[in-house]
Amino acid sequence: MFKKTVKILFLIFILSAVSLNVIISAESNLYKGPAPKYVFLFIGDGMALPQVSSAEIYASALKNNKYPETPRYLSFTKFEAQGFTTTHDASSFITDSASAGTAIACGYKTLNGVISMDIGKKIKYKTIAEELKEKGMKVGIVTSVSIDHATPAVFYAKVPSRSMMYEIALQLAESGFDYFGGGSVIDPDGKKSKMDNKPGNVFDYAKSKGYKITKTKEEFMKLKSGSGKVWAVTEMPADAQSMLYEVDRSKDVLSLADFTAKGIELLDNPKGFFMMVEGGKIDWACHANDGLSAIIDVYAFDDAVKIAVEFAQKHPKETLIIVTGDHECGGMTVGFAGTKYDTAFQKLQKQKISYVKFEEKINELKKEKPDLKLDEIKDIITEYFGLTFKGDKSDMDLTEYEIKLLQDAFDETIKDKKERSKSSESYIAYGEYDPLTVTITHVLNRKAGIGWTTYSHTGTPVPTYAKGVGAGVFDGYYDNTDIYKKIVLILKIKKSY
Amino acid sequence: MFKKTVKILFLIFILSAVSLNVIISAESNLYKGPAPKYVFLFIGDGMALPQVSSAEIYASALKNNKYPETPRYLSFTKFEAQGFTTTHDASSFITDSASAGTAIACGYKTLNGVISMDIGKKIKYKTIAEELKEKGMKVGIVTSVSIDHATPAVFYAKVPSRSMMYEIALQLAESGFDYFGGGSVIDPDGKKSKMDNKPGNVFDYAKSKGYKITKTKEEFMKLKSGSGKVWAVTEMPADAQSMLYEVDRSKDVLSLADFTAKGIELLDNPKGFFMMVEGGKIDWACHANDGLSAIIDVYAFDDAVKIAVEFAQKHPKETLIIVTGDHECGGMTVGFAGTKYDTAFQKLQKQKISYVKFEEKINELKKEKPDLKLDEIKDIITEYFGLTFKGDKSDMDLTEYEIKLLQDAFDETIKDKKERSKSSESYIAYGEYDPLTVTITHVLNRKAGIGWTTYSHTGTPVPTYAKGVGAGVFDGYYDNTDIYKKIVLILKIKKSY
Repeated sequence: MFKKTVKILFLIFILSAVSLNVIISAESNLYKGPAPKYVFLFIGDGMALPQVSSAEIYASALKNNKYPETPRYLSFTKFEAQGFTTTHDASSFITDSASAGTAIACGYKTLNGVISMDIGKKIKYKTIAEELKEKGMKVGIVTSVSIDHATPAVFYAKVPSRSMMYEIALQLAESGFDYFGGGSVIDPDGKKSKMDNKPGNVFDYAKSKGYKITKTKEEFMKLKSGSGKVWAVTEMPADAQSMLYEVDRSKDVLSLADFTAKGIELLDNPKGFFMMVEGGKIDWACHANDGLSAIIDVYAFDDAVKIAVEFAQKHPKETLIIVTGDHECGGMTVGFAGTKYDTAFQKLQKQKISYVKFEEKINELKKEKPDLKLDEIKDIITEYFGLTFKGDKSDMDLTEYEIKLLQDAFDETIKDKKERSKSSESYIAYGEYDPLTVTITHVLNRKAGIGWTTYSHTGTPVPTYAKGVGAGVFDGYYDNTDIYKKIVLILKIKKSY
Repeated sequence: MFKKTVKILFLIFILSAVSLNVIISAESNLYKGPAPKYVFLFIGDGMALPQVSSAEIYASALKNNKYPETPRYLSFTKFEAQGFTTTHDASSFITDSASAGTAIACGYKTLNGVISMDIGKKIKYKTIAEELKEKGMKVGIVTSVSIDHATPAVFYAKVPSRSMMYEIALQLAESGFDYFGGGSVIDPDGKKSKMDNKPGNVFDYAKSKGYKITKTKEEFMKLKSGSGKVWAVTEMPADAQSMLYEVDRSKDVLSLADFTAKGIELLDNPKGFFMMVEGGKIDWACHANDGLSAIIDVYAFDDAVKIAVEFAQKHPKETLIIVTGDHECGGMTVGFAGTKYDTAFQKLQKQKISYVKFEEKINELKKEKPDLKLDEIKDIITEYFGLTFKGDKSDMDLTEYEIKLLQDAFDETIKDKKERSKSSESYIAYGEYDPLTVTITHVLNRKAGIGWTTYSHTGTPVPTYAKGVGAGVFDGYYDNTDIYKKIVLILKIKKSY
């Protein structure tokens, strides 16, 4: 048994080494210039062409021009290098964020759910962030979801399962990385962990490892170059300890761009830095098939990218910015059967809050009045999504068929979660979301001309964009493991394969 | 009125000229080498990333490897230059093939349905094929759909509506282009045309203009360099005068690759040639949400591209190959709610014929037995799609929910077309397709992990690939009108703006 495992591990090692060498030697012709001093890696979680394209089309639609504009709204679609990146993992054509992140951070395919370890869950991979930290650069990790979530975790932690969030947070404290920013943590005291001898609360543990922790905006604003190792947490942790959806954020609450700008301020030093910034809630909105929230979070992500672009303008010969997605999410399409060759993205602007905030409101109403009827919440559906029940066939008015969909969904929603239908028909209609809320976003999205096919990810390649030193190697069609390999190449990291 | 029209036309002219000059001058830094002698432009109609990706994933899935392969199955995904192309037209974010084709062939945005004319339907644009013909190159136009269809038509005809198929075919005869190959024509005798003084049958008219016409494989095989102007028509016109779906084609029937190879043979000459080859039935299969037929037609298209790649290997310093799609079709996604993070594309191989052939079979059975029951056609559903009714929960077995979907669809199918439901619910379920057939492909596709959101096109950008002389200018993110402009740049066409 042991021999067999060793044999398999050896085989994986050799195969990986061979494939890596082939790629690196093939590409070594491509970039021979100096290594950039500042490297930004932006990952739009769940952001593929449909999400990018929807964000650009929405911006154009809002201008109410008679003729559509050629979309060039986002900063990164103007980058000089652009490629397609395949995203399958070791066991599926549809990856999750753990295996996709491991591919990007470590250059290896692994299984769904695994954080920077091999498919046998034995080998711990060295991540690109660790390589660059060893090289003397400072390292920052920023995300709009919880900092122990899969995409940020793959850069600093190695665990067999992404659900080991306490262990992940402990490894954050042990990473020695210079800056963490964004969402909070899911399991600060290890209540869900099976670990023996827990070292206590993760924030206390991080303090003991030399981290300065900020949890208010006031503390955050006081951070400056020379503050030492910093872990900055959003002042307003929202669903699952993430930052607020951008559509729900008031301007005075810290944004993803704020955390990115602070990262630059804290990390800038003569040996340079590497910063990973994740737009994690694009993915969550797409899981819930909430198009407007996804689009507005693409804008929040782009605002963060723009901070890096401004920095690059000051350091043009020393900066590399990479923007990618880890996978598509939701099977989003710019077009829907009911709208045929038309779209009406401007209808989305009637949506005022994210699906999460709306669900909270409905849940409050249900608590107040357990026998709530759909009739009693029509007003708030109109208030928050612009959908009307007038029967006047106006633009935002619901058809009989759409009202039937809402009524069916509402009938499911008022049931206890355990009583809800477990049929595949029900899953296809609502996934595991609040049936009423997901049906409202479905109906609104369909009126706008957006279709969805799943509550999970999909397997189409994602776009990757690059700007600055060595950007050219990001043109073409390549795998997500190649993103790691291309950074290794450009940064001239000596690998001991 | 006249003055106003002139004013608007002048404005359009100035704006177009300005934008064209800006683009050309911005890009003139990019390519200054010699013009290629041989230019291939391949257009996969309805082919965007989901179609390309599905074709590659299906090839990998058929190998039954435990681990997914990095998809590199198609020839063109290996090309050295790759970009994203936006496809909106002058009035919609979702283009049709006429306006998309006009953008590619002429460099101008126009309205849905318009063939190489401006949005006012007054100005006739000169097409890239005409430019290159004037330059002395020979020109060929090949398609798997009827040769009077929008995508081939935009290269040789100028009409205000794509439905003017008789007029389009007459302009084919008058084009002076050297080679037409592929599907037949829809309206050879002008029965649907409102034209005065019709010059008769379009094939006779083309003969009078010096074209040699072949309609059998025997005649086709005899064609050779020096045959003069040739119009070669498939020996087996299928649905809407197109070539057969590749999944229905027996090997002895002429393929898109055969028409492409013959084009090279006929067009090769010291002044070079331009050949446009359209894979038109990818689009038709996607309209019908028939995933397997779409994938197999992507392979037929790729086989045609491979003919050009082989030619380029013999003329590496003189050849440019461009492969693009004109738009996405069907809102195809690699993933579906019911299969979550899994796909099972290998299940598609159980499908033996296209949706069209199956519909023909059902129609025959209905003629024989007007009171046909679903029970009586279960065997042929199993025979042609592999779907079983055993109730044994095996891989290809239909669930109760799926059988209900088929029964509902069958109940619609046996109705007269006029009696069928006109509700939006019914349209979303079946489009304007045979309800039973489209539900069978939906069910099979969903089992395999493919989702669809529409029977029309969608507005996501498409990938563009290029190989050979000047290919590098096709990296990046650009509009479909830029494909024309890039060819103008590389071919050093002097434009008199």
